Amino acid sequence: MNKQIAVYPGSFDPITYGHLDIIERGLEVFDQIIIAVARNSEKKSLFSTAERIGHIEEAVDNNPRVIVDTFDGLLVDYVASKGAKVILRGLRAVSDFEYEFQTAQMNHNLKSEIETVFLITSVPYGYLSSSIVKEVASLQGSVESLVPPVIKKALEKKFGKT
Amino acid sequence: MNKQIAVYPGSFDPITYGHLDIIERGLEVFDQIIIAVARNSEKKSLFSTAERIGHIEEAVDNNPRVIVDTFDGLLVDYVASKGAKVILRGLRAVSDFEYEFQTAQMNHNLKSEIETVFLITSVPYGYLSSSIVKEVASLQGSVESLVPPVIKKALEKKFGKT
Amino acid sequence: MNKQIAVYPGSFDPITYGHLDIIERGLEVFDQIIIAVARNSEKKSLFSTAERIGHIEEAVDNNPRVIVDTFDGLLVDYVASKGAKVILRGLRAVSDFEYEFQTAQMNHNLKSEIETVFLITSVPYGYLSSSIVKEVASLQGSVESLVPPVIKKALEKKFGKT
Amino acid sequence: MNKQIAVYPGSFDPITYGHLDIIERGLEVFDQIIIAVARNSEKKSLFSTAERIGHIEEAVDNNPRVIVDTFDGLLVDYVASKGAKVILRGLRAVSDFEYEFQTAQMNHNLKSEIETVFLITSVPYGYLSSSIVKEVASLQGSVESLVPPVIKKALEKKFGKT
Amino acid sequence: MNKQIAVYPGSFDPITYGHLDIIERGLEVFDQIIIAVARNSEKKSLFSTAERIGHIEEAVDNNPRVIVDTFDGLLVDYVASKGAKVILRGLRAVSDFEYEFQTAQMNHNLKSEIETVFLITSVPYGYLSSSIVKEVASLQGSVESLVPPVIKKALEKKFGKT
Amino acid sequence: MNKQIAVYPGSFDPITYGHLDIIERGLEVFDQIIIAVARNSEKKSLFSTAERIGHIEEAVDNNPRVIVDTFDGLLVDYVASKGAKVILRGLRAVSDFEYEFQTAQMNHNLKSEIETVFLITSVPYGYLSSSIVKEVASLQGSVESLVPPVIKKALEKKFGKT
Repeated sequence: MNKQIAVYPGSFDPITYGHLDIIERGLEVFDQIIIAVARNSEKKSLFSTAERIGHIEEAVDNNPRVIVDTFDGLLVDYVASKGAKVILRGLRAVSDFEYEFQTAQMNHNLKSEIETVFLITSVPYGYLSSSIVKEVASLQGSVESLVPPVIKKALEKKFGKT
Repeated sequence: MNKQIAVYPGSFDPITYGHLDIIERGLEVFDQIIIAVARNSEKKSLFSTAERIGHIEEAVDNNPRVIVDTFDGLLVDYVASKGAKVILRGLRAVSDFEYEFQTAQMNHNLKSEIETVFLITSVPYGYLSSSIVKEVASLQGSVESLVPPVIKKALEKKFGKT
Repeated sequence: MNKQIAVYPGSFDPITYGHLDIIERGLEVFDQIIIAVARNSEKKSLFSTAERIGHIEEAVDNNPRVIVDTFDGLLVDYVASKGAKVILRGLRAVSDFEYEFQTAQMNHNLKSEIETVFLITSVPYGYLSSSIVKEVASLQGSVESLVPPVIKKALEKKFGKT
Repeated sequence: MNKQIAVYPGSFDPITYGHLDIIERGLEVFDQIIIAVARNSEKKSLFSTAERIGHIEEAVDNNPRVIVDTFDGLLVDYVASKGAKVILRGLRAVSDFEYEFQTAQMNHNLKSEIETVFLITSVPYGYLSSSIVKEVASLQGSVESLVPPVIKKALEKKFGKT
Repeated sequence: MNKQIAVYPGSFDPITYGHLDIIERGLEVFDQIIIAVARNSEKKSLFSTAERIGHIEEAVDNNPRVIVDTFDGLLVDYVASKGAKVILRGLRAVSDFEYEFQTAQMNHNLKSEIETVFLITSVPYGYLSSSIVKEVASLQGSVESLVPPVIKKALEKKFGKT
Repeated sequence: MNKQIAVYPGSFDPITYGHLDIIERGLEVFDQIIIAVARNSEKKSLFSTAERIGHIEEAVDNNPRVIVDTFDGLLVDYVASKGAKVILRGLRAVSDFEYEFQTAQMNHNLKSEIETVFLITSVPYGYLSSSIVKEVASLQGSVESLVPPVIKKALEKKFGKT
């Protein structure tokens, strides 16, 4: 089989240790992971697309098997344009599941040759989300155990040192 | 990367179109799939392990990328013994998710280098299970749209022609 | 439109105020309700089919719009044999929903002209089930607010007066 | 019993094949269905109330047993004003269930003589929602299998041809 | 052991009989309950922080074991500043559970010596929320069975007499 | 207020680090915890009631604030007989929640002065259950990170050294 590429799409506003756990474990399964930052969610985002890409690149530490990119439009079109057949997603909880279920079925309807593959987030990160990280940081709580150092610094710059 | 092998474990008592959907789509993602029939669930099973293996082999039609095998003992030990790093599972509904979540976390605790990867069952098979197939067949309902011909014949032999 | 008949199937082992709530409210929607006691669940039941029918008849108090019957075999075949097009079911909680969802989809697959219609159990009975009633009665707890008098007496006879 | 009328309330922004499935199957159970477009949700809607009514009327193709109307204020008051006793709703997934459960209990508290009756959306439409349709259309994805032709045309006019 | 204080945080916009049920039952378990009104949710609130505090004080009727206060910043810091070790929360449904689960795990991560303790809302209030109360009141529905008289009056003043 | 006693009921067949986490954290909230081993579940249990009590006593290490006892009959009657007003339970997942919800509502119906109080199991033990521990041990998997040493030894004696 050819090199198996998986696209890991998301807002990553900001990237957390939960996302990095999925990426690290995805690399056990796939040859290459393209982290695809959704451009259309930029308006309400805390960090700009450029900032988010910078953060992710620093967090994944120039791993040659990881590519950071942006996309807009239909995800399945983007995945196909990259020669990939797999969308990678993490699952944390039941509420995740229903949303992911709906999205995966719709993506299958739009382009049936692309598969969505799920990993369950590791135990210590099961309650983590970008939203709760931003809320904690905005209230001056410590995010040291939740995000990589580059994000910790960026959040401190936005909200004041914690 | 080496050939990526995924182990698809289960009781398959009997195999349904839902299982075959996961196998077919798993072959888009992995180089080889080992269908691993759990031997320890034999006591309460409708079909013997040998029957179930025969059914699966006929249903997957000698695809050289699919291997049918049995296992007992810890699943993660079996997976490692096959040189595989991936367990493949299908998700249909929220109740599936909780059981699969618990099992995947335990398997990760037992052997952290093995990943459990999930596909969501295709829309037409989302309500299918081996149990409901057996119940319908035992009540003389038609299972033609639920299982491959080899299973339909085997169920008719067990429960009388439908 | 002709008279609309709904079949309300179940084990009713025993009937509770939760079931009676669904029947009473179902009579607001349908012209006639056939309470269909599943015969195949008799083996593990506390009360015999005959006892359960007697209990239900007393509990519904000879309402001419309610018929009590038994069935075995496929539910959809029974429903069709009665000239009915509707299966009535109560929903209490999320776990109910998944089971009912699977069953309704299978019944639709078996006979697409029959519809399953759901009512949500009234607030005070949302946690009630025949199983928990039997457990409470077996431990000598009071079931007065959970089941009609005929069932209270029958449970006392089985488990001793509470 | 008198003619049984069911009110099917919603935003229908836009109507999908999932809604039409519920309407078609509801007509097997009830004599008449009033599709009641909620007027108060207009502000954030993609289509105006008038557009949505036009779409629905074309989609249901002048079926004399289907009436399209709008409502504002309390749904239970509207239902009573129409001489109806039944609210019809579709259920797709667990997250639906919790919201519908809360709403049905509240409506029962407000006017106990009105019943909410649920049908489970047919398998092929279980993942469909007006929101995901709008998202797909806005990203130039094909909505042909999701909505009737009148909506497909209207979405193309809003978002450009797909 | 010292006096056990529990902090019951929330928006209370407005307080409902569901909240009062949790407070009353919490007083069976704890020596003192501090009702902590979240100040940062003020922007989108119907009632101002001052109004909400006034409502709660009237609703709890000067019980000396109940203190009404406001907080901003991290909840766990506020709890610690009050010499308390317990956060009290009510659970109504599955969707509540997932949010509460995430929040409780995060609070444990931030300050592990503080415990979140849950009570399940009593049966008659299981479907109640401040949001649905506001929606019903805004549509001129009766809220008499849902909120204490002080809130009923305040809602009538906001939305017109019901 | 008097000394606050909480009863922590269960099968504890065997006790796991998940149970011990709830006990340890419960001691932050309550003055005394009575671990109440359900006697009626003995038949299908792996360990006898006497064995389970011995295991728990060793695991809690003679903490004077922890009492180990057995009960049969209605839990609420046992709780009242101990002069306690609180039942303590751990919540791990959504499926737990529904069962616990039903049981708590029933216990409230049987004796309204007794409250059920929930703690959410700590992150590392969220997937643990006595059943999965027994399954792993029976398959010769390592349970060292799941149960205290006394249970590890007892499981090895039952199933052979792992």
